[in-house]
Amino acid sequence: MVTKDKIDAILADYKDFKIATICSHSSLQIFRGARQEGIKTIGIVKADKKELYESFTHAKPDEFIVVDDYSQIPEKELLEKNAIIIPHGSFVEYSGENFEKLNVPIYGNRNSVIWERSRKKMFEWLHKAKIKTPKVIKPDEITGPALVKFPGAKGGRGYMIVSSYEDFQLRVGDRECMVQEFLVGVRAYPHFFFSPISDSGYKTKQGRLELMGVDRRVESSADEIARAVSAGMKPTMSFTVIGNEPMVLRESLLGEYMEIGKRVSETSFDLFGGMFGPFCVETIVTEDLEIYAFEISARIVAGTNVYPDGSQYSLFYYDEPMSVGRRLARELKVAFKKKRLSEIVY
Amino acid sequence: MVTKDKIDAILADYKDFKIATICSHSSLQIFRGARQEGIKTIGIVKADKKELYESFTHAKPDEFIVVDDYSQIPEKELLEKNAIIIPHGSFVEYSGENFEKLNVPIYGNRNSVIWERSRKKMFEWLHKAKIKTPKVIKPDEITGPALVKFPGAKGGRGYMIVSSYEDFQLRVGDRECMVQEFLVGVRAYPHFFFSPISDSGYKTKQGRLELMGVDRRVESSADEIARAVSAGMKPTMSFTVIGNEPMVLRESLLGEYMEIGKRVSETSFDLFGGMFGPFCVETIVTEDLEIYAFEISARIVAGTNVYPDGSQYSLFYYDEPMSVGRRLARELKVAFKKKRLSEIVY
Amino acid sequence: MVTKDKIDAILADYKDFKIATICSHSSLQIFRGARQEGIKTIGIVKADKKELYESFTHAKPDEFIVVDDYSQIPEKELLEKNAIIIPHGSFVEYSGENFEKLNVPIYGNRNSVIWERSRKKMFEWLHKAKIKTPKVIKPDEITGPALVKFPGAKGGRGYMIVSSYEDFQLRVGDRECMVQEFLVGVRAYPHFFFSPISDSGYKTKQGRLELMGVDRRVESSADEIARAVSAGMKPTMSFTVIGNEPMVLRESLLGEYMEIGKRVSETSFDLFGGMFGPFCVETIVTEDLEIYAFEISARIVAGTNVYPDGSQYSLFYYDEPMSVGRRLARELKVAFKKKRLSEIVY
Repeated sequence: MVTKDKIDAILADYKDFKIATICSHSSLQIFRGARQEGIKTIGIVKADKKELYESFTHAKPDEFIVVDDYSQIPEKELLEKNAIIIPHGSFVEYSGENFEKLNVPIYGNRNSVIWERSRKKMFEWLHKAKIKTPKVIKPDEITGPALVKFPGAKGGRGYMIVSSYEDFQLRVGDRECMVQEFLVGVRAYPHFFFSPISDSGYKTKQGRLELMGVDRRVESSADEIARAVSAGMKPTMSFTVIGNEPMVLRESLLGEYMEIGKRVSETSFDLFGGMFGPFCVETIVTEDLEIYAFEISARIVAGTNVYPDGSQYSLFYYDEPMSVGRRLARELKVAFKKKRLSEIVY
Repeated sequence: MVTKDKIDAILADYKDFKIATICSHSSLQIFRGARQEGIKTIGIVKADKKELYESFTHAKPDEFIVVDDYSQIPEKELLEKNAIIIPHGSFVEYSGENFEKLNVPIYGNRNSVIWERSRKKMFEWLHKAKIKTPKVIKPDEITGPALVKFPGAKGGRGYMIVSSYEDFQLRVGDRECMVQEFLVGVRAYPHFFFSPISDSGYKTKQGRLELMGVDRRVESSADEIARAVSAGMKPTMSFTVIGNEPMVLRESLLGEYMEIGKRVSETSFDLFGGMFGPFCVETIVTEDLEIYAFEISARIVAGTNVYPDGSQYSLFYYDEPMSVGRRLARELKVAFKKKRLSEIVY
Repeated sequence: MVTKDKIDAILADYKDFKIATICSHSSLQIFRGARQEGIKTIGIVKADKKELYESFTHAKPDEFIVVDDYSQIPEKELLEKNAIIIPHGSFVEYSGENFEKLNVPIYGNRNSVIWERSRKKMFEWLHKAKIKTPKVIKPDEITGPALVKFPGAKGGRGYMIVSSYEDFQLRVGDRECMVQEFLVGVRAYPHFFFSPISDSGYKTKQGRLELMGVDRRVESSADEIARAVSAGMKPTMSFTVIGNEPMVLRESLLGEYMEIGKRVSETSFDLFGGMFGPFCVETIVTEDLEIYAFEISARIVAGTNVYPDGSQYSLFYYDEPMSVGRRLARELKVAFKKKRLSEIVY
């Protein structure tokens, strides 16, 4: 892991800064948001995707760095350009173990990725924050339908349902995984934004929290499984995220959601020095209006792409169209002006 | 019930007015809409929710009245502040039988709540308006799946499916309820707005009708039941509203929807002197494009929260972002200027 | 079929132009979009729908032509008014075989409707464009659930699932139809716009392609079938489109979607001289992120009604609210100024 001192020294030399990320996941929103805030952007892109990203004339990055492979982040060039990296889901996935070693400033705390990457640590985090979660089950305790999740996000690919220990042994075997009870309820993905420098939003010990939107993931085959079953097929349920759709929550749930966000945020300071900027706590709401969290994404989630001009909730804090992409650009801009970048960048 | 004369006398003394409601349901949209129209707002709030509502810097009310219990509406204070109450779903639910006795002006006609509260009266209303409804069944006529609904809205909590008379006796017993045939089709919730003073929108005998948006409710467990079934579970279907999502209707259905709104509106004048402002006629559309109504909400519905800056339909009438919250604030503002408040407030 | 020369001669006489279409399908979006671009509009309407369309004060056409029957398009009057017809789905359906003979300029290439109308030709088009499709099956090859589609769009009405050849013989018989394998996955409907005169968007051999939005159709009973099944019913699955809802795609799928749009567009030039303006390639995305196309709509689709002020994707190309209705009005306006109308009108 690169030391915080080293990143701070780099930041201290930045006379200005640019926003950089890999052209994938939520990058168009990030580039467009930065543009709205007057910040220059750098798209790290494979040659065969450059034409695609250039075609989005009002959302493309100001400049491209073409790479052969996203696991090789062009550190030197990024440093020369005074880049700050926005670590979206694909960035974290593609850069893999190299993420922590990147010798370039990253928005947020790179420790959060270590906590997010391990499902065991993530559940430790949720439990320490006193948030209800699905029960985690040992394979030999499986008595009914249970959800098996493998390491990494990968947009839900590879998750499976097993019905018994035998089924688990047959289909999962020795692979590293986490088994969770299968909860019945509506999935809701709140997009939080934590800022230690803002003075609007829901107070936490270390700063303020905004709810920037809520989405539902659209998953294949799970979200069309009823059609297949009614057609007389017996398809296996799978959870690959194909896209996202908007949703608003019952207003009386907002209090509990803000508390969940607050506790996840405050606990991140107890555990590893804090999580900064956008994050998501993936939840399921049961018929009794109980909220269970089954995942934390310690960075911008793709569901925010539903709201490139702000959401039903961002309007509660901003008179302008405020996407998460724009919100994070503004956060960096304000922090830079106040000489507080090092608080939110590592 | 407070007399109309008494409310009119109060209104006659109002030199100006503020908009007041309980902090729940659709209150953030209402407060923000009033703010957009330059009208001051009062949030009636329990102490433990005040911080939450204060955190929404661009949607919070201008002032709070803190109460111990929402069944105790602070009438005296509201009168002193020249308040007009906006009766959203939670307001009606929380204030209960006291609603009709409130000695404070309420936007709309408080008689409409009496007609809305009783499912029997509601179906009488729908039938008088010549609108197709699901069949209402006597318990001993249940031969297949039927929906059992209890009094009050409660966001769908407690609704259940019974499969036979025996099942009904076992699970419902003597409780007051209405049994309806279970219809298969797409649920659509049109948000209507009736104004006797506007000159745009669809003509009715008493005024104009606008379609301000359409949503679909997201219900737990009903909207995720396919996943549970495919996972091998046998969950009970329940209908607690967790949130709402946007939808647009096939354009060729708009004519029939406006007719439904018109007939519900006109019939409200025949039955109880008219319903004013926002209302919703909850519907199901079958594969033959037949529209069945199964409920009337004679006030703003939470589904309007999907559109705090206006919907695909509000654009047909307004060049500005026009939520239902803003629309009702404007209605009150215009009526106040034209000295016609007493027509739409009781 | 009217000759291109004849239409060109008509266009050459137009000193100005108006946009005309039948009051249905996506007409409100089209009228409003034209209004935003300063172009006058004509609504072809049946007497009993005139009041409805007049009630939409900010989206109604500037003038109406009242007809008894939509199969009788008032050609003479439209020519006198210098009309260019926008052929939406209902227009094509209602005008039927007369469509090709209409002696009025139509935006786009009327040959595209011939290719769209025949499912056989449509699949030939998709295959020539090297796009994956569901397998087309001969009735006697049916071994499991298969989808039976009849000619014409009709918003999905009448499509059915058959489970075997016997089932097919019983329920379909000798009717003209196409049988397709039933694919399990998430349906996504990308709204493309092809322009030979624009210089922004994704390059094709003949011009530029924009992605103006993505929707999901809401179908009765298919989208509520799980509720019915869980309630203990055995409903037949049907696919009547009741409405549409918004969706965004996983950003990493955009490259493949733009390639699909490009190949469909380029192939249209090889086959019949090109398709112009809005079109949709109806797709299903499987759990392996494979995209299958099962239909082409060679004109504006009703799903664009979800985005009358632009979508998450139109923002990538435009700083203004840009619906497909507005986009096509602008295209005609620019082409008229550049004296290039005849390239995109036939």
